[in-house]
Amino acid sequence: MYTLYSMQRSGNSYKVRLALARLGIPYNLVEIDILKGESRTPEFLAKNPNGQVPLLEVAPDRHLAESNAILWYVAGGSMLAPEDRIARAEALQWMFFEQHSLEPNIGAAYFWLALIKGGRELQSHALEDWMENGYRALGVMETHLTRHRFFVADHFTIADIALYAYTHVADQADFDLTRFPAIRAWLARVADEPGYIPMHWQPELAPAQ
Amino acid sequence: MYTLYSMQRSGNSYKVRLALARLGIPYNLVEIDILKGESRTPEFLAKNPNGQVPLLEVAPDRHLAESNAILWYVAGGSMLAPEDRIARAEALQWMFFEQHSLEPNIGAAYFWLALIKGGRELQSHALEDWMENGYRALGVMETHLTRHRFFVADHFTIADIALYAYTHVADQADFDLTRFPAIRAWLARVADEPGYIPMHWQPELAPAQ
Repeated sequence: MYTLYSMQRSGNSYKVRLALARLGIPYNLVEIDILKGESRTPEFLAKNPNGQVPLLEVAPDRHLAESNAILWYVAGGSMLAPEDRIARAEALQWMFFEQHSLEPNIGAAYFWLALIKGGRELQSHALEDWMENGYRALGVMETHLTRHRFFVADHFTIADIALYAYTHVADQADFDLTRFPAIRAWLARVADEPGYIPMHWQPELAPAQ
Repeated sequence: MYTLYSMQRSGNSYKVRLALARLGIPYNLVEIDILKGESRTPEFLAKNPNGQVPLLEVAPDRHLAESNAILWYVAGGSMLAPEDRIARAEALQWMFFEQHSLEPNIGAAYFWLALIKGGRELQSHALEDWMENGYRALGVMETHLTRHRFFVADHFTIADIALYAYTHVADQADFDLTRFPAIRAWLARVADEPGYIPMHWQPELAPAQ
């Protein structure tokens, strides 16, 4: 069985938990509080030298890092991971866009504004860039979603999961989503998908199946 | 035939040119000077709403963005793109690491220090973070390369191409690579690969084949 090292309030960790829930794959969950330094202990760094969650143990002592790479691994062979040549490339395109244009801006703003007490003052020098670049990323998504129900292949995939994680909490990081009606409709479609779990879902609270 | 929109001095564009050269795939090259705003014209934004190079036209009016997604597309089916489940996941892991931990730091420092006159003064508020995070990313790579000749699957893949692009110009962005002997040995191995072209290679200067 997989072991997932995850932080409840991390959007990157939530991606993996959302995909595993949708796929009905059981796993052991180990909560790592990065705010308490638990991702920088010698024991954790031996598993992931980059010191980040999520981290998936895929075999004894074999660990896979980077949320979007983990999504491809766990979803491989399912409808969530397109394998048609162009659809796969487009899913990868949106997932690299997410890590390069969305997460470093909206994810960073969410981390410092929503999770860290006093974060707004500590990061005041960076906040303007995050807002400007985050709004630009949301604009690119809005344009695409005006003409598509999902990001790739006309159905729900791991590209949607990757983009959903930080977009759905952008309002907690000062982003005004009322300007983006197509994004809001897509957020609602994702939350309507079978197997959906919210970010703060706890396995022990799940109904017996 | 592919059309590649590329900027000669962009590491992200170089990745695609290096992969196409290695694979012996011919293409039309369109030089886009982002420093002159050529990636933000209405014509270019119609092709890529995110306004970035590289961009690959894969079919008439069908364009693929994000350098690492393009690498998977053009290299699919070749030895450069591992398709074994775990090797593919590990290649993706390193390529997401590249876009999330390396490019935003070493790539940003390279852009502002090596390409933009007066960039050091303009970005003085960000430089300290870029250096700290860039050195941390290099440390993670050094640790891995101490025990591996290439990043994945024990041979040269698109993961190496992705990581090579900005690492091999890090010294132009104030990074001292003498501290990283395993990285320097790997840079030399990549440059020894068949089909290698340097970043500033121009197709019209190529010897007739």
